Amino acid sequence: MSSYAYLGPEGTFTEAALLQVPGAENAERVPATTVNAALDMVRSGRVKAAMVPIENSVEGGVSATLDAIAQGEQLRIIREVLVPISFVLVGKPGMELAAIRFVATHGHAWAQCRGWTEKNIPAAEYIPASSTAAAAHELLDDGADHDAAICSPLVASRLGLTVLAEHIGDVADAVTRFILVSKPDFLPERTGADKTTLVIPLPEDHPGALMEILDQFAARGVNLSRIESRPTGLFLGDYFFSIDADGHIADARVADALQGLHRISPGLRFLGSYARADRREYEVARHTSDQAFEAAQGWVRSILVSPAAGSEDIG
Amino acid sequence: MSSYAYLGPEGTFTEAALLQVPGAENAERVPATTVNAALDMVRSGRVKAAMVPIENSVEGGVSATLDAIAQGEQLRIIREVLVPISFVLVGKPGMELAAIRFVATHGHAWAQCRGWTEKNIPAAEYIPASSTAAAAHELLDDGADHDAAICSPLVASRLGLTVLAEHIGDVADAVTRFILVSKPDFLPERTGADKTTLVIPLPEDHPGALMEILDQFAARGVNLSRIESRPTGLFLGDYFFSIDADGHIADARVADALQGLHRISPGLRFLGSYARADRREYEVARHTSDQAFEAAQGWVRSILVSPAAGSEDIG
Amino acid sequence: MSSYAYLGPEGTFTEAALLQVPGAENAERVPATTVNAALDMVRSGRVKAAMVPIENSVEGGVSATLDAIAQGEQLRIIREVLVPISFVLVGKPGMELAAIRFVATHGHAWAQCRGWTEKNIPAAEYIPASSTAAAAHELLDDGADHDAAICSPLVASRLGLTVLAEHIGDVADAVTRFILVSKPDFLPERTGADKTTLVIPLPEDHPGALMEILDQFAARGVNLSRIESRPTGLFLGDYFFSIDADGHIADARVADALQGLHRISPGLRFLGSYARADRREYEVARHTSDQAFEAAQGWVRSILVSPAAGSEDIG
Amino acid sequence: MSSYAYLGPEGTFTEAALLQVPGAENAERVPATTVNAALDMVRSGRVKAAMVPIENSVEGGVSATLDAIAQGEQLRIIREVLVPISFVLVGKPGMELAAIRFVATHGHAWAQCRGWTEKNIPAAEYIPASSTAAAAHELLDDGADHDAAICSPLVASRLGLTVLAEHIGDVADAVTRFILVSKPDFLPERTGADKTTLVIPLPEDHPGALMEILDQFAARGVNLSRIESRPTGLFLGDYFFSIDADGHIADARVADALQGLHRISPGLRFLGSYARADRREYEVARHTSDQAFEAAQGWVRSILVSPAAGSEDIG
Repeated sequence: MSSYAYLGPEGTFTEAALLQVPGAENAERVPATTVNAALDMVRSGRVKAAMVPIENSVEGGVSATLDAIAQGEQLRIIREVLVPISFVLVGKPGMELAAIRFVATHGHAWAQCRGWTEKNIPAAEYIPASSTAAAAHELLDDGADHDAAICSPLVASRLGLTVLAEHIGDVADAVTRFILVSKPDFLPERTGADKTTLVIPLPEDHPGALMEILDQFAARGVNLSRIESRPTGLFLGDYFFSIDADGHIADARVADALQGLHRISPGLRFLGSYARADRREYEVARHTSDQAFEAAQGWVRSILVSPAAGSEDIG
Repeated sequence: MSSYAYLGPEGTFTEAALLQVPGAENAERVPATTVNAALDMVRSGRVKAAMVPIENSVEGGVSATLDAIAQGEQLRIIREVLVPISFVLVGKPGMELAAIRFVATHGHAWAQCRGWTEKNIPAAEYIPASSTAAAAHELLDDGADHDAAICSPLVASRLGLTVLAEHIGDVADAVTRFILVSKPDFLPERTGADKTTLVIPLPEDHPGALMEILDQFAARGVNLSRIESRPTGLFLGDYFFSIDADGHIADARVADALQGLHRISPGLRFLGSYARADRREYEVARHTSDQAFEAAQGWVRSILVSPAAGSEDIG
Repeated sequence: MSSYAYLGPEGTFTEAALLQVPGAENAERVPATTVNAALDMVRSGRVKAAMVPIENSVEGGVSATLDAIAQGEQLRIIREVLVPISFVLVGKPGMELAAIRFVATHGHAWAQCRGWTEKNIPAAEYIPASSTAAAAHELLDDGADHDAAICSPLVASRLGLTVLAEHIGDVADAVTRFILVSKPDFLPERTGADKTTLVIPLPEDHPGALMEILDQFAARGVNLSRIESRPTGLFLGDYFFSIDADGHIADARVADALQGLHRISPGLRFLGSYARADRREYEVARHTSDQAFEAAQGWVRSILVSPAAGSEDIG
Repeated sequence: MSSYAYLGPEGTFTEAALLQVPGAENAERVPATTVNAALDMVRSGRVKAAMVPIENSVEGGVSATLDAIAQGEQLRIIREVLVPISFVLVGKPGMELAAIRFVATHGHAWAQCRGWTEKNIPAAEYIPASSTAAAAHELLDDGADHDAAICSPLVASRLGLTVLAEHIGDVADAVTRFILVSKPDFLPERTGADKTTLVIPLPEDHPGALMEILDQFAARGVNLSRIESRPTGLFLGDYFFSIDADGHIADARVADALQGLHRISPGLRFLGSYARADRREYEVARHTSDQAFEAAQGWVRSILVSPAAGSEDIG
């Protein structure tokens, strides 16, 4: 049976993301207290893969996740999952909206529900919690400091808590992105709507070094959907780039771009090619299709096999 | 008297950053509970300027700050401050290291001291707090849940708390960057070691759109020290770029790059030109100096003043 | 009265080009034996302007013209003229096609009529002449070596020679380009379908130096219609570039590109902005219009006038 | 025995170039009256290879040669030869300098000796000839129109003509470039100081199309030593580019650039990789070496062989 780690505790949006993975519902699911702890379970072989937030998460983890997979023993992203972020307000048994005085949740979730709370429970005070799920769990304790919690619908239903209000996030349709991370042994198959994630150390800090890197993509018609410079932490002004590019390493244009990048910055890391969760396809220009690459390689090869001039007594 | 907002409560690293601003020690300093709240005090005129974390902060706020100044009523960055991040462990009066069972602090600070805590107080349990300073303040309450807190040296000395251990962060020499933000009425003077911060909406999502933007910098020899794509939140795949470039808008090459950017992406935001906190200077190529720009403009102007051919009966 | 030099003798395609210039028909027209001689008459003030071939001329002169205007005292191109190249075969009085044994003409014209001559007068022998017009003129001499000449319709009609065959060039619709050159005192007015000619020394011989130059055009959406590297003659491997770009220096995007070029290669020469003879217009992208440049400059200027921060007791 | 064509007649600088080819001295050497005629002898199999001028030739032929090898049945450049251009003035037997009234030579040679002739034989008149060698040959005829000829030292010595003056060219150290052209069956071996010649149709006439082409070279650190846009003759504004690039198609970076070009402009022509006549070597950046290409290909290949995720019951 497969086993998965995820950023816990039970009932987080991250667990909701994991439950989207085929087979995960019946697999062992191990909550981890931090992103790093989840990834370490993969590295040690304790689990097959780990689900962690990568972007805009209400449970945080963005920069932490980026930095964690950029360094240390190599890992591989094998799947991307989008989870609609919908907050509910849950209370202790019998609690009513008007009576709420203390609300616990994660700081990010609190920030994302400010509009609703200021209007509907203006007198309520905020109690920080280490996660939305933890805040909900604690409501079951008799000694809980708080009367209510803001959490995911998943944890609310699982714990059987009273839902006092639904959809209380300020942004409708908020969505958070999660990634499933394994050891670097697998390469998901090409689907035609894929994404490739890379970590690229900046070879030299001069105007144009970044351009040189990006040109490797542009020259092959490969679009970028995310770019972030991150300090390496080694010394101020030393950066690496974390990049998502459209396409799969099995696409000739992506493979060619990666070769170009490897030449410029041999220390780059391939973090995975995997299906885009939003299934958004991208146009491929005629001259960057696999066919165009194959034709070009064939053409050059046909020239290279000519016999040397001079072999027939000329020139 | 000037007045400043900052991400509070009292004693945060952000207040330490504010205290580096000349005159701030004797000015009114207003703590705010969130980055947005601090910025809103600037927008409303309640304070002259606000100090907020911009990068890697132990109190969080990075993405929040980037997004907050990228949208809404315009603001201007007028100063950058670096604060060495040094953590101390403080306890209730009389508390000894061996007796600690519950330690409160902000989640980021807890993560940054994991090495030390696992080795020195392995049995201690983590209690989340909304900031390192809040965790310390609460130690003064009789009913505090926790025995100790991880916080800044500033808040420890201000509250007269017992310091049980110093320099407990896992990374020596950690430094966090803060920015001082005002209304868009001021432009700090050029110092020769400056930084310009911009927010640039991506005009179109095609391979090369980002290149076109970056080329505006590269073509003028302007180096970038930070770049981040950020989702606009309007719809998936809609991005803006948050960029720090070397130099001041009063440098001809930076002004020229900004003009090029404005033509491509007229919705860009100028968030300020201000002295680099690290005073690191950058080389300016001969052909991107102010002199080269002036000479080039003079040359083109000298041609444009020629009388029209035909005016003298030829051609 | 205006006076013009042209690459002679009388009746050349170059004179035909000159006759297209308004007023030239009634002006003094001075034939010159070489392109350099024609240009020197401009430099010395002997004539107001000179018409010389610039491309593909049946009378040669392409490289010679390029090099002549690239060096020495500055000159200015003020007009471009296209002349349809149509060859006729003319004979001595009474001569018939079948009787022709020697045909004189310029080497380029001979080459361009090979198809016709091989088919129609296969036995005829070629006699080189310094120009098509000279070959025709000589037919009037009693002692001429040749029986017939290949020349322009203009010279045939002017000398009253018997035309034995018309349109004998192998390429129908051949057209040659000529330029009218004056002292660098004039700048033709912008017409909306203009061309700008430049001579740009390559600043350094490294991969990318040429790219840097061309990027100055591409970054402003300026298309090139001709580019040629020419050895400077100073030493092997030292080049300059002769370039025709779409647009007029009075177009903001062209002026901006020229400023960029001047910074990179301050020794560049502006050889003129003038109406395209083919009147072909070009599309101007929204973000490279004069309006976009004006808006961008206004935006940057509006920021630069902000008072210095600190002037009001902050930051 | 090998046989070679060359742009004749006997004694031209082109024959001098051919004589530099090992073995040519004892091979059959067939003079041709035009560049096209010489190339046609190669195409038909009449000769093994042809020597023709490619640049700045005193016998012309530059544009003609470029255009001739760019079109029609494919050919291959297999060798480049540089010939120092040195002119001599030869006279009929017994002729003295002061007595010369008519001087025959090719127009280009006449132009290149103008300084000397204006100073030393100012009264002499110019008689055009189809080549410098032809002018010299005709001096042996009793009925020659001219008293003297300007030609190469080779033809002077071969015909035993009286040399009246040596080194009469205006430019000391003038050098002309010639190429040896065969059928497209041979590929000279890589020497480390090579040149690759290409003909590239411009895929589309938009600002940046040329940039896209040149970027294929720049992105691989391949320097260009010559570039020329040439009208295709199909319609005005339709161009191809004639390019010389540093390096040999057997260099990984050149092969990679050619593949990139083939994808953009599949109609491009490979005209040959051959040793540079000037033996000038070029620096190869570490990241464009054959080793860097091999390492990059190996790295991408190592990723592509990973088994598909899912095959082991995960993700």
